[in-house]
Amino acid sequence: MPTHFADRLAAAVRTKGNPVLVGLDPRVEQLPDALKPSDPTEPASVAAAYGEFCRGVIDAVAPLVAIVKPQSAFFEALGRSGVAILLEVIGYARSRGLLVLLDAKRGDIGSTAEAYAAGMLGERSPWGADALTVNPYLGDDSLAPFVSTAKDRGAGLFVLVKTSNPGGKTFQDLTADGQTVYRHVATLVESLAVDTVGSCGYGTVGAVVGATYPEQLAELRAAMPHSWFLVPGYGSQGGAAADVAAAFDASGLGAIINSSRAIIFAHARKDYAGRFTPGQWQQAVEAATREMIDELRAGTTAGKLRQA
Amino acid sequence: MPTHFADRLAAAVRTKGNPVLVGLDPRVEQLPDALKPSDPTEPASVAAAYGEFCRGVIDAVAPLVAIVKPQSAFFEALGRSGVAILLEVIGYARSRGLLVLLDAKRGDIGSTAEAYAAGMLGERSPWGADALTVNPYLGDDSLAPFVSTAKDRGAGLFVLVKTSNPGGKTFQDLTADGQTVYRHVATLVESLAVDTVGSCGYGTVGAVVGATYPEQLAELRAAMPHSWFLVPGYGSQGGAAADVAAAFDASGLGAIINSSRAIIFAHARKDYAGRFTPGQWQQAVEAATREMIDELRAGTTAGKLRQA
Repeated sequence: MPTHFADRLAAAVRTKGNPVLVGLDPRVEQLPDALKPSDPTEPASVAAAYGEFCRGVIDAVAPLVAIVKPQSAFFEALGRSGVAILLEVIGYARSRGLLVLLDAKRGDIGSTAEAYAAGMLGERSPWGADALTVNPYLGDDSLAPFVSTAKDRGAGLFVLVKTSNPGGKTFQDLTADGQTVYRHVATLVESLAVDTVGSCGYGTVGAVVGATYPEQLAELRAAMPHSWFLVPGYGSQGGAAADVAAAFDASGLGAIINSSRAIIFAHARKDYAGRFTPGQWQQAVEAATREMIDELRAGTTAGKLRQA
Repeated sequence: MPTHFADRLAAAVRTKGNPVLVGLDPRVEQLPDALKPSDPTEPASVAAAYGEFCRGVIDAVAPLVAIVKPQSAFFEALGRSGVAILLEVIGYARSRGLLVLLDAKRGDIGSTAEAYAAGMLGERSPWGADALTVNPYLGDDSLAPFVSTAKDRGAGLFVLVKTSNPGGKTFQDLTADGQTVYRHVATLVESLAVDTVGSCGYGTVGAVVGATYPEQLAELRAAMPHSWFLVPGYGSQGGAAADVAAAFDASGLGAIINSSRAIIFAHARKDYAGRFTPGQWQQAVEAATREMIDELRAGTTAGKLRQA
C-alpha cells in the first residue's frame, strides 16, 4: 500500500521547512532568450524548449521546496509533443525528489472519472502525478471515483472550492439555503477528507482556495480542518503573506502556497532589473523562491516548520 | 474568416437528416474480440487498438450522422500514445466529413483558458476539434477566453449546465435567489449565445443538458433559445426519444443527442444476440445508429429534417 498523500506532503513540507508550491506554467514568449525555440510556431520545437526550461526550473527549486505544479494546458496546447514533454517533466521532478501536483482541473462521471484518475495518478500510471486538481460542478458522484482511485494509489486531489479570479464569484458566491455555493462544496470536501484522513490529520482530498479573499480563506480553514489547501494567487495575482496566513494551522501545516510567473519568469521581474545577467535566469528563479520562502516564514505559522 | 460553428452544425444535421451524436468512448475490455490488444496493460498497444476501433466506428457512421464526440479521458489515460491516437482519430473523423466535438470538460482562467481553446479548437490547432465541452464553475471570466477563441476560429463550445448523472443535483440544483444554480449558468450561456449568434439562429456557445430530466430539458430549452444542446444520457443511461423531444425547436434543429456505448459496443448488446457474427461488429454499429436515427425521427421534431 503506498504511503498516504497527505502524510507524504506533510513530511516533505516539514523537511523543506516551507509551504511554497512552484507553478510550472511555460509560455513561449516569456522564456529566457537562450531557451527560445527557433520556430515558435512549431509545436515540437516549443515543446522541447518547455522541457529544457522546466528541467532548469526544477534543478533550481528542487533543493528548496517540497512540491511543483505543472499547468497541463500549456503543454496540451502543443498537442502530442507537448503531452510527451509534460510526462517527462513530471518524471524529472519526481526523480529530483519533488512531489508533483498536476493542475488539469479534470471533472467527469463514472468510468470516465476513473479513467482520468487511474491514468494520471500514481507512480505506475502513464502520467505519474502525485496529485490532481479537480472540478466539483458535476457533483458528489463525480468526485467519488477520483477519491477512491487516489486513495488506493496514495495520491491526492485538490477540489476547486473558491477560485482566485474575479469571476470566481459568478456561481461560487451564490447563496443557497443560507450558504454560498463554495461553502456547500467545502462541506462535501471536508467530509471526503475526514473519510480519508492520514496520520498527519489531513485527508486525501484537499481544496483550492484563492488568496485574493483572505476572509474567505479564514472561513474555509475553519470549515475544512482536515483538508490541505492549495492557495493560488500569491505574487503575480496580488496576494501577500498576510493574506494567506489564515490558510495554515498552528504548526504551519495545512496549506501550500502557489506562485508561478513571479518565480519561473523571475529573470524578467522589474524589481530584479540589473541583478542577473540573461544567462543567470536559474539564479533569478532561486532568488525569487528564497524570497517567497522568507516572506511566508516571517508572515505565517509556516515559520514554525523545522528546517531539515 | 471560418464559417460559424452553429451554422456548420445546422447544415450538417440537415444534410444527414438526423441529430445523432456518436460518442467515441473506447474501453479496452469492451472492444470486439478481433481488436483486443495482445497486452491490455501496455498503453501503446491499447492505444493502437483504440485507433483501429475508432476508425472502424467512424467508417460505419460517417455516411449516417453529422458529428462524433471522442471522450478525451479514455485516450489521456494511456499517456502520450493515447493522446497521439486521439489526435489521429480527430483528424480521421474530419477527413470523413464529420464534425468533431471533443469531450474534455476543460475549465480554467485567463491565459490558461486561452491555451486550452487555442490548442484544441480549429482546423490548424494541434488537436483540431470543431467544438469542446467546458465546465462553468470558475465563472464568467473563465468562459470568456474560450468564447473569444472559439468565435475567431469558427469553433463551438458546450458548457455543462445540467448533467445527466444522479449527483448532478448536488450543486447544480441548489436554489439561489429563487433560481437553481444550473438556471444561473443557463442565463450566462444564453447571453453568450446571443452575443455570438449565427445565421441559423444559434450561437457559438451551446449547453450540455442531460436527457434524464425531461422537465428540466423543456425549462432550459425555453431559457436558452439561442443555444445548441448536447444531450447525453440517451440509450445506456436510460433516456428515450420522448424524453429528449423537448430539446428540439419546431424545425428539428437545436439539439444533438448523444449515445456512446449502445452504438459503439452494439456487438455486445443483448437485444442483438445472434444477429451479427463477431466479425460483423461494424454492421452492429451501423444497425444501432440507424435504429437511434429512426427512433428520434419518429419521436421528435427531428423527423422534419430533410434527408439529403
